[in-house]
Amino acid sequence: MEISEAYPMNGGDGLHSYAKNSTPQRRIIDVSKEVAKEAILEKLDIGVLNSSKTFGIADLGCSVGPNTFAAVENIIEAVKNKYQSRGLNSKIPEFQVFFNDHVSNDFNLLFASLPQDKQYYAAGSPGSFYGRLFPEASLHIVHSSTALQWLSRVPKEIVDKDSPAWNKGKVHYASSGDQVIQAYKAQYEKDMEKFLQARAHEIVHDGLMLLILPFNPNGIHPSQSASNLCLDLFGYSLMDLAKKGRVSEEKVDSFNLPLYITTPQEFKAVVERNEGFSIERTEILPRTDFVNGIGPNGHQIATYLRAGMEGLIKKHFGGDIIDELFELYAKKADEILIPAMVKSAEQGVTLFAVLKRKAY
Amino acid sequence: MEISEAYPMNGGDGLHSYAKNSTPQRRIIDVSKEVAKEAILEKLDIGVLNSSKTFGIADLGCSVGPNTFAAVENIIEAVKNKYQSRGLNSKIPEFQVFFNDHVSNDFNLLFASLPQDKQYYAAGSPGSFYGRLFPEASLHIVHSSTALQWLSRVPKEIVDKDSPAWNKGKVHYASSGDQVIQAYKAQYEKDMEKFLQARAHEIVHDGLMLLILPFNPNGIHPSQSASNLCLDLFGYSLMDLAKKGRVSEEKVDSFNLPLYITTPQEFKAVVERNEGFSIERTEILPRTDFVNGIGPNGHQIATYLRAGMEGLIKKHFGGDIIDELFELYAKKADEILIPAMVKSAEQGVTLFAVLKRKAY
Repeated sequence: MEISEAYPMNGGDGLHSYAKNSTPQRRIIDVSKEVAKEAILEKLDIGVLNSSKTFGIADLGCSVGPNTFAAVENIIEAVKNKYQSRGLNSKIPEFQVFFNDHVSNDFNLLFASLPQDKQYYAAGSPGSFYGRLFPEASLHIVHSSTALQWLSRVPKEIVDKDSPAWNKGKVHYASSGDQVIQAYKAQYEKDMEKFLQARAHEIVHDGLMLLILPFNPNGIHPSQSASNLCLDLFGYSLMDLAKKGRVSEEKVDSFNLPLYITTPQEFKAVVERNEGFSIERTEILPRTDFVNGIGPNGHQIATYLRAGMEGLIKKHFGGDIIDELFELYAKKADEILIPAMVKSAEQGVTLFAVLKRKAY
Repeated sequence: MEISEAYPMNGGDGLHSYAKNSTPQRRIIDVSKEVAKEAILEKLDIGVLNSSKTFGIADLGCSVGPNTFAAVENIIEAVKNKYQSRGLNSKIPEFQVFFNDHVSNDFNLLFASLPQDKQYYAAGSPGSFYGRLFPEASLHIVHSSTALQWLSRVPKEIVDKDSPAWNKGKVHYASSGDQVIQAYKAQYEKDMEKFLQARAHEIVHDGLMLLILPFNPNGIHPSQSASNLCLDLFGYSLMDLAKKGRVSEEKVDSFNLPLYITTPQEFKAVVERNEGFSIERTEILPRTDFVNGIGPNGHQIATYLRAGMEGLIKKHFGGDIIDELFELYAKKADEILIPAMVKSAEQGVTLFAVLKRKAY
């Protein structure tokens, strides 16, 4: 059995915690709310409940809240509205919500911050969503927001000096050669196949999957995307630290980000290949990083990324370089990333996909 | 809505952690294994599974492991044996196990120590078991070991200076007046009624509840029980600290242990009053504190109790007195408790009760 690597967000509620630094992810959940509601109203078959009286919901890659609670409440409201709109008020089921993330996620914080007035039975489900997490046909709606860009692992070839896909001096694929790009893509496809296969077991026939994920437009080279540049900057910053002698070059060579940003086309292809789900709807969500035309600065971007990446970087490089790295990153972001983001500010970066479990 | 107080065991895996100091509780689970197996073989109706393909198990008051994992594995093995004994090998269901304890329990540690080869889908369910935790009819077997002695709260009257049940200078009821004893008993009955009512909703018809709890023999005065003396010693130790000026007497007066040790008679009465469950079997488990006639010493008892009580005491008195208190306790245990335990070493102290959810 292949063990998935775990990349949890920063726990606790301190300065660099995910709980305090997840506004961008929250904004995405906010703009996705209406689409989620519509999807449930239009695509959820009331017959989906069948024999069970409990409506099962899972949020995969939920981290520590509070974002996940907002997403889940929205789904429950939409399901209740659906019942009400059919005059089935008295048939509204009980809701059981499973909050999933890696075993090393801060579930203690998640549980401590559960809303007092929640209208569901809450449970935490630890483990990688690239494997089975729930019993057969036990879920009716699965939600996952900005989590599926995390691969189960860095592709093996990338760190193999003898492989043509060795990713020397880089930590991501966008500005690397084709072989690196292909290795990442292959890992993504393998992971998504595992993800879909597991969910096909767990979701009842006609159950829905609401997936919110970062994407790059079809048909452009990865190096042309600001989202990818955002990750490449880690490589540039680390190489600067290597030049200064703060880390060894070998250490940088052996580090790579287990992240892949798909395209709508690639995503569609993996879902169709799996055959367990039909794609009911895809929608490009409005940009949330530019509010009234004003985007974040380098420091803000570095802070948000730190909440998600600190653990991963610490594990490889130790804690000493963290502050310096993210300061360097912030500078580079101001110089290179922000202009690229402004230039492509009209382009969508987040995809909302509604999948339905096929009933044979 | 009345909020239950939370009294979690010590988290983490340090010197005073429950994880490292729960051998007595583990021994109880070990001696209960065979009874649990027999109960499942004899009392579990295979038809209990009905329409769902998932067999739901909950361990209530599970703390952080590893004890809970042993109990759960034993139950699953017994259920599988039951299916096999009927030649229903191919019908063995999938198992979903809910680990329940207070929100402030160390679920991070629990999840991190989940067995690698577990044969079930694991979930953590945070919250007091004196309220609803799970959807209607979603569980098939509920297990709870050495947890039901914890009340949801100290009875109100006990800390009310103007009440005849004011428990001045004591922290438990055994050596107090009748009004204190009655107040504790009333709280126990109220709590058990809530417990049974919640479980009656959550457990499927004909589903089982396996309850393991400390008990005192019928018909003796609470002050005659070594189990109660074990708790009373906290009061004596705290009053000693008050005399030394290390804590104020008022502070001791306002502190009481939210623990009640029932009798088989009382237990039977609350279950019968509730009407949701039939008592299928009760059994007095063999003593586990005397191994080959040799019991624990005062220091060992103090250490075990500390893992369960430190949080509760810290919350009221602060952390400064903890070491001193448990040292004092250990001495008194050697002087008073051990002789009482030896004297009553033939008497059972742990009850195993098998309840079945009535099918109307």
